[in-house]
Amino acid sequence: MTTTNGRALEIALAYHRAWTGQDFERAMTYIADDIVCQAPAGTLRGMEAFRQFMGPFTQILTAAKLIAAFGDDDTAVVMYDADTVPVSDAPGAECVTVVEGKITHMRIIFDRLPFEAARKSAGAP
Amino acid sequence: MTTTNGRALEIALAYHRAWTGQDFERAMTYIADDIVCQAPAGTLRGMEAFRQFMGPFTQILTAAKLIAAFGDDDTAVVMYDADTVPVSDAPGAECVTVVEGKITHMRIIFDRLPFEAARKSAGAP
Repeated sequence: MTTTNGRALEIALAYHRAWTGQDFERAMTYIADDIVCQAPAGTLRGMEAFRQFMGPFTQILTAAKLIAAFGDDDTAVVMYDADTVPVSDAPGAECVTVVEGKITHMRIIFDRLPFEAARKSAGAP
Repeated sequence: MTTTNGRALEIALAYHRAWTGQDFERAMTYIADDIVCQAPAGTLRGMEAFRQFMGPFTQILTAAKLIAAFGDDDTAVVMYDADTVPVSDAPGAECVTVVEGKITHMRIIFDRLPFEAARKSAGAP
């Protein structure tokens, strides 16, 4: 389910399509230099911290499917299914704020528990 | 950020206000008998299974704040901050499908990891 009447939604979907389409560098063009990203493990500040968080995730992504996307000119919410190498069912939800075509704030929610379980079963400390 | 032009969004927000406002029984009036709820731990089928999942969560809730809510007549997405007794920062995101004023499907995403950590540190097996 998608409505497309907002600029923030447009940018959120362009970002989403890029990173789920294996074009992470294109995805990064929608990210503001000073992005603040509230992720499950804590708050990331700046494009480089964001790159180090999302980049590795895109490399283990095997499939993604949009569940819902809504928004207006300033804010958008995107929910998606994601399959990854360690965890086959890893849905996520993002709420983004967009200013002048760039994502300046992202709140991202996903379940870290199956990733932690996969890490442990792979013999990680 | 909220848009209020959809019936599904109206129901999703009414449900949200009820369960975050300590009126879980009122919240349950928005849930369809045959709800299917895709939760982090698996798929719940039917109102009773849903009640057993959400009821205990509402009892440990100490505060909640809406982050974003968008939707149309059929589908809505709600993202919120939640503080709970064991975990102080426990945001969640829900995508709901509404049919005839009742939530028939819910996809709910939250991070189970801090709850698992709290459970373990409380001495649970």
